[in-house]
Amino acid sequence: MSATPEAWIDGRRGAQLSVFDRGLHYGDGLFETIACLNGRPRLLERHLGRLAAGCARLALPAPPRALIEAEIATALKDTPRAVLKLIVTRGAAAVRGYAAAPEAGSTRILLRYPWAPEDAGEAEAGVRVRVAALRLGENPHLAGLKHLNRLEQVLARREWSDPAIAEALLYSASGALISGTMSNLFLVHGGVLATARLERCGVAGIMRGVVGGLACECGIDFQERRLTAEDLQHAEEIFLTNALTGIRAVREVPGRTLGIGPVTHRLQQALAPLLRGERGAPG
Amino acid sequence: MSATPEAWIDGRRGAQLSVFDRGLHYGDGLFETIACLNGRPRLLERHLGRLAAGCARLALPAPPRALIEAEIATALKDTPRAVLKLIVTRGAAAVRGYAAAPEAGSTRILLRYPWAPEDAGEAEAGVRVRVAALRLGENPHLAGLKHLNRLEQVLARREWSDPAIAEALLYSASGALISGTMSNLFLVHGGVLATARLERCGVAGIMRGVVGGLACECGIDFQERRLTAEDLQHAEEIFLTNALTGIRAVREVPGRTLGIGPVTHRLQQALAPLLRGERGAPG
Repeated sequence: MSATPEAWIDGRRGAQLSVFDRGLHYGDGLFETIACLNGRPRLLERHLGRLAAGCARLALPAPPRALIEAEIATALKDTPRAVLKLIVTRGAAAVRGYAAAPEAGSTRILLRYPWAPEDAGEAEAGVRVRVAALRLGENPHLAGLKHLNRLEQVLARREWSDPAIAEALLYSASGALISGTMSNLFLVHGGVLATARLERCGVAGIMRGVVGGLACECGIDFQERRLTAEDLQHAEEIFLTNALTGIRAVREVPGRTLGIGPVTHRLQQALAPLLRGERGAPG
Repeated sequence: MSATPEAWIDGRRGAQLSVFDRGLHYGDGLFETIACLNGRPRLLERHLGRLAAGCARLALPAPPRALIEAEIATALKDTPRAVLKLIVTRGAAAVRGYAAAPEAGSTRILLRYPWAPEDAGEAEAGVRVRVAALRLGENPHLAGLKHLNRLEQVLARREWSDPAIAEALLYSASGALISGTMSNLFLVHGGVLATARLERCGVAGIMRGVVGGLACECGIDFQERRLTAEDLQHAEEIFLTNALTGIRAVREVPGRTLGIGPVTHRLQQALAPLLRGERGAPG
């Protein structure tokens, strides 16, 4: 495949979108970032399920599933390895204003990016993270959604340029530890695995859900709860999840270094066949 | 002018934007909505000043002012009355991810919409408003900016469809009364005019600034402070401001009706020549 990204809009090849699209004007839409291996989209069921649920929450007409699947198949023809980004917006509006026309439909934007093979060294060694100064605003109406309003993540990502830092951890306005800019966060303390509740902010990541399911399969105690700075300080293991990279152990947070602990290691092993596309998500 | 909107991207006529624009992907940009009368953009100094300040806060390369002015002049040729929407984004990115390339520039999008003459009846009679169930998330990094992350406003606007309701008032997550979905809010109590502080959320509207300046010119006591539900309940006068409509008296909030009081009336009179384009903004 070519090194530059390719685009399809409502199934037609082309990279030019109407400048009146509400995705641009208001971020009125959702997206999915899908890892594709061996010419197949990984965890597609989960991605399409989350997209449909997000459309329902935003009252955004969900594109027919068969259409999305056919367009993904077209995009992956002769392309074994790629990242697909699927954006669904409330479409173009000729009239100004936040109110959408009752007949407003949706626009499907499918983008195919090259996906460089993993750096096995980084995956095994773990990553260094920082803590963002920016705190996430809290709005239960948007919490969990992978919507297009991502200025907070853009600004948090602008806080550092050191390539040795892989990610920044984000707190919420009310002081809960939530996630990274592009990953979900898991902590292990006393053998118990925990990830942040996302009822006020954050994105309910696909890999977050998969790893939660694997923890149950593996018999690991697992909680979704409010996490705090104290939890971060006392965690024996910390890892990040992301649909592309799976599980990344954190080996350094400000003021502390950590090893890759047994829970992280066990979940990485359980996840490996799924990342290779050899098995599906846990039930 | 035609009834359909017209578009210029980086000065070139056309309504097709790169689908890789960060304005679409992240809402990584800002906008201005400019009323144009007699072929001239009203309050242009203020709009360009706010845009430049917003660009600085987002570390977004500000387009040269002369360029914007020339493009606005082109858009207004033979078009006495219109609304111009100017969007500035961080431009197209061939690479995925929140980090912008160090060499990233900006994209200017200028849209010209028809602007129907005012309904003098509505302007004089005042409007009915509701209170939104949705509360605005709080993030000082974004507060005040007219940025492209507007899903909160879209969702708040979806809460009602009754055309007799002109606007919804929005509280913040921490319970402060902030603004409407597309307007700023002023209350009068005991002869003192107040509008919400916007250090945690809300948009610092151009007309809000103009009206604050006029209040000083008129010798009206004026405060920017935290407003609450109690302030709303006890206000003797309530009005909304917006760059297009100026001052709209509120004649009904849930549970109460109000008249157009003396402070509102005086400010409307002081504002009238400015709305007609006969004078500039107060210093």
